[in-house]
Amino acid sequence: MKRLLVVSATALGALASLPAAAQFQKPEDAIKYRQSALTVMANHFGRVAAMAQGKVPFDAKAAADNAHVAATLSRLPFTAFGEGTDKGLPTRAKPEIWKDQAKFKDLAEKMATEMAKLEAAAKTGSLDAIKAQVGAVGGSCKSCHDDYRAEKYSAN
Amino acid sequence: MKRLLVVSATALGALASLPAAAQFQKPEDAIKYRQSALTVMANHFGRVAAMAQGKVPFDAKAAADNAHVAATLSRLPFTAFGEGTDKGLPTRAKPEIWKDQAKFKDLAEKMATEMAKLEAAAKTGSLDAIKAQVGAVGGSCKSCHDDYRAEKYSAN
Repeated sequence: MKRLLVVSATALGALASLPAAAQFQKPEDAIKYRQSALTVMANHFGRVAAMAQGKVPFDAKAAADNAHVAATLSRLPFTAFGEGTDKGLPTRAKPEIWKDQAKFKDLAEKMATEMAKLEAAAKTGSLDAIKAQVGAVGGSCKSCHDDYRAEKYSAN
Repeated sequence: MKRLLVVSATALGALASLPAAAQFQKPEDAIKYRQSALTVMANHFGRVAAMAQGKVPFDAKAAADNAHVAATLSRLPFTAFGEGTDKGLPTRAKPEIWKDQAKFKDLAEKMATEMAKLEAAAKTGSLDAIKAQVGAVGGSCKSCHDDYRAEKYSAN
């Protein structure tokens, strides 16, 4: 448990060192970036989840590699939800994100923490550990999507 | 130099362990994935390049963090150019990619190798080393875009 907590702290440290400020010249750049980072993260998390669910054969090295990519990506999207990035491209980001910033940031950090724990679990090579942590990551995705992701894309 | 070569070999090892086969259910999934990975990679490479070009102040930790993200991403897009992924979503991928597969793969590996060297250079904290390697990465991007990226997106 101690080891997992250390990994999580590292993840949040990395998150903090990639600040949002002034990284995007236009709102559409931020929206495209965050959607891209979430797409790649979801793909690699999905590859680990498919093994956890028995949909594809378990391959410890592939699980560790994919969990590492997902954990690296998990720290990125939430640097791109700055003020004024609610419009510019079609987006499913709800306006509540900019009203509940503390709560949104807290959920984002929880997800990155759970993903870092998945990376640590995958490194152990234990499918049981991966299965448990895939569930925790999925829960953290859902808790944010429930409140802050719309069903449909906005018109712009 | 020896150290850089070791890092490059590791990068290619990671590339090999993330195979394309059967990772994408539909061509549009592969196209969306590779475009997303390239978008995120270009963003983080761009942050390092901006420091190398004196457009933003040099911050050694930020350079190292961003080069690490770019290097991690550099191994991903080229797993998503499988047969049949030339259509499905608007794409700038030229048909030549699937005619010249060996050359395309070679250019992709060169880019990942140069990006791994940039990660190693950024870890040293030397702005001069970063400047030299940013140029090498940029050259590897261009050499592939010149032959394999269209000016405009396809209609689908």
